[in-house]
Amino acid sequence: MSGGAAPSRVLEITLPEWVDQVVDWNRRYADDESRVRLAIALSRENVERRTGGPFGAAVFESATGTLIGVGVNCVERLANAVLHAEVVAIMFAQRRVGSFTLAGPGAPARELVSSCEPCAMCLGATLWSGVERLVFAADRADASALAFDEGPVFPESYAYLEQRGVRVERDLLRAEAAGVLALYRERGGLIYNR
Amino acid sequence: MSGGAAPSRVLEITLPEWVDQVVDWNRRYADDESRVRLAIALSRENVERRTGGPFGAAVFESATGTLIGVGVNCVERLANAVLHAEVVAIMFAQRRVGSFTLAGPGAPARELVSSCEPCAMCLGATLWSGVERLVFAADRADASALAFDEGPVFPESYAYLEQRGVRVERDLLRAEAAGVLALYRERGGLIYNR
Repeated sequence: MSGGAAPSRVLEITLPEWVDQVVDWNRRYADDESRVRLAIALSRENVERRTGGPFGAAVFESATGTLIGVGVNCVERLANAVLHAEVVAIMFAQRRVGSFTLAGPGAPARELVSSCEPCAMCLGATLWSGVERLVFAADRADASALAFDEGPVFPESYAYLEQRGVRVERDLLRAEAAGVLALYRERGGLIYNR
Repeated sequence: MSGGAAPSRVLEITLPEWVDQVVDWNRRYADDESRVRLAIALSRENVERRTGGPFGAAVFESATGTLIGVGVNCVERLANAVLHAEVVAIMFAQRRVGSFTLAGPGAPARELVSSCEPCAMCLGATLWSGVERLVFAADRADASALAFDEGPVFPESYAYLEQRGVRVERDLLRAEAAGVLALYRERGGLIYNR
């Protein structure tokens, strides 16, 4: 790298083109199961279309099930280690509500639903996002079985979130989400943080 | 939020316009002090120009001091809780090298330098980024004095990074960086994750 001209000050993050074929933006996702199924559908589609790692996430209004934003893992496609599914879902949800917090004054409670347990980075992002609830399907053990590293997450990490009002619900439809991880392995998908 | 048409699949992240007035892309930042000074200069400029929180960061080639990417806190300006200075610096550095890891085959060792100790999210991002070294100036106590929350970071978190080959250097030019935090408080800057 030789220095020289200043690099561009603009960086673009794009969801895959297929997203709007998979996501029904008008649907109310009434219960946890339908919300987790959407996150898992996004993760599976990301594997089958070969657009990234086996992870999907979405942000909902907790009470109504209105969908606010979705994310899939974009690490390899966009050459960006930060773009885990949860981070992407939070970014797009905040862009949609026009605020750096999903817990702004007068805003309805919102929640993050992920196909897999968040890594250390995404757990931090969850805390800063302003969601009041985190729901995930596959867990750390399932991701680790694939040699995906989850980073420095400890029982105290979850206690820290709970103390700040973020409730955590784990292992919903775990087997189904773990199946997508297995599919990714079968297809020889890249383990980008091994 | 009423659902309806699908939201845009594209999200743009921009550095402030003043960045190229402050950053000399052709300079070799030969030692730790010059690298930390750049991170602090970015944090101060972000406060003085009122473009965001009091945090700056940069990625360098460790051996040569070649600058790869810079970041400033963009949380409020871009309505995006994820855009801490370290995350922004990593994203732009990876875009510049065209890879989701700064530790790719044949790549020179690279390091992340921040004006302040990374929060839980940014510490995770540091691990996934592929840098072999993390250097910071102000620390958790300085940020907390301003009521900025650093999230679930524990001594074991640092042990986790060190075990995976990321060396950590703390408190370089700490007083200077803490001065920028104090400046932000004096100016009544927003504490977005209090």
